Amino acid sequence: MNYKKAMTTDFSEWLAQFACDFDKQFEAILNDELSSDSRLHRAMRYALLGGGKRIRPALCTLVAGDNANPSVVARAAMAVEAVHTYSLVHDDLPAMDDDCLRRGRATTHVEFDEATAILCGDALLTYAFELLATLDVPAEQRVELVRVLSRAAGHNGMVLGQQLDIDATSQSISFSDVQAIHQLKTTALITAAVQIGAVIGGHNAADWGEFAEKIGMLFQVVDDILDATADSRQLGKTAGKDNAADKPTAVSVLGLDEARDYAAQLCEAAKSNLQQLGVDSSSPTNLMPEFLLGRSF
Amino acid sequence: MNYKKAMTTDFSEWLAQFACDFDKQFEAILNDELSSDSRLHRAMRYALLGGGKRIRPALCTLVAGDNANPSVVARAAMAVEAVHTYSLVHDDLPAMDDDCLRRGRATTHVEFDEATAILCGDALLTYAFELLATLDVPAEQRVELVRVLSRAAGHNGMVLGQQLDIDATSQSISFSDVQAIHQLKTTALITAAVQIGAVIGGHNAADWGEFAEKIGMLFQVVDDILDATADSRQLGKTAGKDNAADKPTAVSVLGLDEARDYAAQLCEAAKSNLQQLGVDSSSPTNLMPEFLLGRSF
Repeated sequence: MNYKKAMTTDFSEWLAQFACDFDKQFEAILNDELSSDSRLHRAMRYALLGGGKRIRPALCTLVAGDNANPSVVARAAMAVEAVHTYSLVHDDLPAMDDDCLRRGRATTHVEFDEATAILCGDALLTYAFELLATLDVPAEQRVELVRVLSRAAGHNGMVLGQQLDIDATSQSISFSDVQAIHQLKTTALITAAVQIGAVIGGHNAADWGEFAEKIGMLFQVVDDILDATADSRQLGKTAGKDNAADKPTAVSVLGLDEARDYAAQLCEAAKSNLQQLGVDSSSPTNLMPEFLLGRSF
Repeated sequence: MNYKKAMTTDFSEWLAQFACDFDKQFEAILNDELSSDSRLHRAMRYALLGGGKRIRPALCTLVAGDNANPSVVARAAMAVEAVHTYSLVHDDLPAMDDDCLRRGRATTHVEFDEATAILCGDALLTYAFELLATLDVPAEQRVELVRVLSRAAGHNGMVLGQQLDIDATSQSISFSDVQAIHQLKTTALITAAVQIGAVIGGHNAADWGEFAEKIGMLFQVVDDILDATADSRQLGKTAGKDNAADKPTAVSVLGLDEARDYAAQLCEAAKSNLQQLGVDSSSPTNLMPEFLLGRSF
């Protein structure tokens, strides 16, 4: 797929088309590799193919660029989405956020059961590393991708962020503490999506670090704003969760107006990063920051 | 450490010394890499350093042999033990086996809480791949190790075995069905421990497949026998669990005597595999099958 050709001035249209194409490829691969009728495979397919905006795969694909091997990019993007999906499945468990709605459908433990949801998450996480280890790229690159993803997703990345997020419940913390939690909980994996795209596209992953950081923080602030302002039908997941759980967020700490100002600053910073990176002006990547910001109004 | 030198005629003595040395190295690495006072790191250290016989690391180390780089072998063996430990932490959760005793101590979710135990397991699994991806061996080898471990531990290996084991509860199934579940639930990861040792030791991993299969099945049959015959104090975990949960095991399907006969056959087969592999007669590896069998009497 040529993403430049697919570019429209409306990023949401581009993203919807991307998600549709991505899901088709994803489903074909899952039909090959997770094809059994076991409860585990059914739960994995249910969780993975439950819609989702596919922001992380889109980022990975956009950063990789048109010169990268499309099937390699797709499998690598699937690995990132598998990690994101496992984190949602485990987050939604009764012992964690105890949520019954995700991507407009019953959460995995509601559709199946808790034990299956725990195992489904475990299997999705493991599958992500299997996908990366068997990519059709040189071993040096594969091992770099495993390193990037394991560091971003693990005990000093996303999982630590989830732990700190739980610990912060009902605590009065500063905005910089909220930012530190968001950096781990959300930005780390989004940064990994960008870095994985960069490695596969033959770019210098470090060059993309600042953009990844800004877009990851923007994504989380917008998520906080949406949690406070949208309804569950719009979100496809339970709205008002952070407030109900008494979790500190950008909105609870800054207030809605200031959170929107902060999001707008992150959007401008991300756009300026893209200019510095010399991203082709026709690339849909340039439209992503404003698309994310736009969701919050 | 020269494991040949460390050999004694008593494998349990050798194993106790190995576990002691291994735990010291493990603790030093965790003090470096999981050193924060976060609840997550504390839970990970609690789960990883809670004793354990270290059978899988021992197998990995023995198969790697004396010519392999000891620090590489240790880190690879830690990766295998991290996967084993995560599987125990998640298995013990209320939604799974709901157990409060493991390795003679409170299970992780009892010592901390359920959310922390879920995240702890997730982080241990991710950490295993980080350990392998950052080993001091050529990228080709690292990627092979990630491939071996992810396949063994994932949706067509250990996690599937755990799902099938749950599904088989209260079902009347044949011995070959029990074997198929055990192959996935237990043997797959033990085989990975052997294969990882073989890759690091520069041996042909496929040559070790039959031995790994036999020793893995032997380990599980002995575990079934112990569950039915030993008490919780001896086991360091709740005894009689399989029977209480109405899970089909080698003992429930074959009866105790026939299960012991089957274990003895597996022991002989594993010893004969070691002979065919030309394992040095002075290696403690030769004593492992009878050590495992001996636990069941």
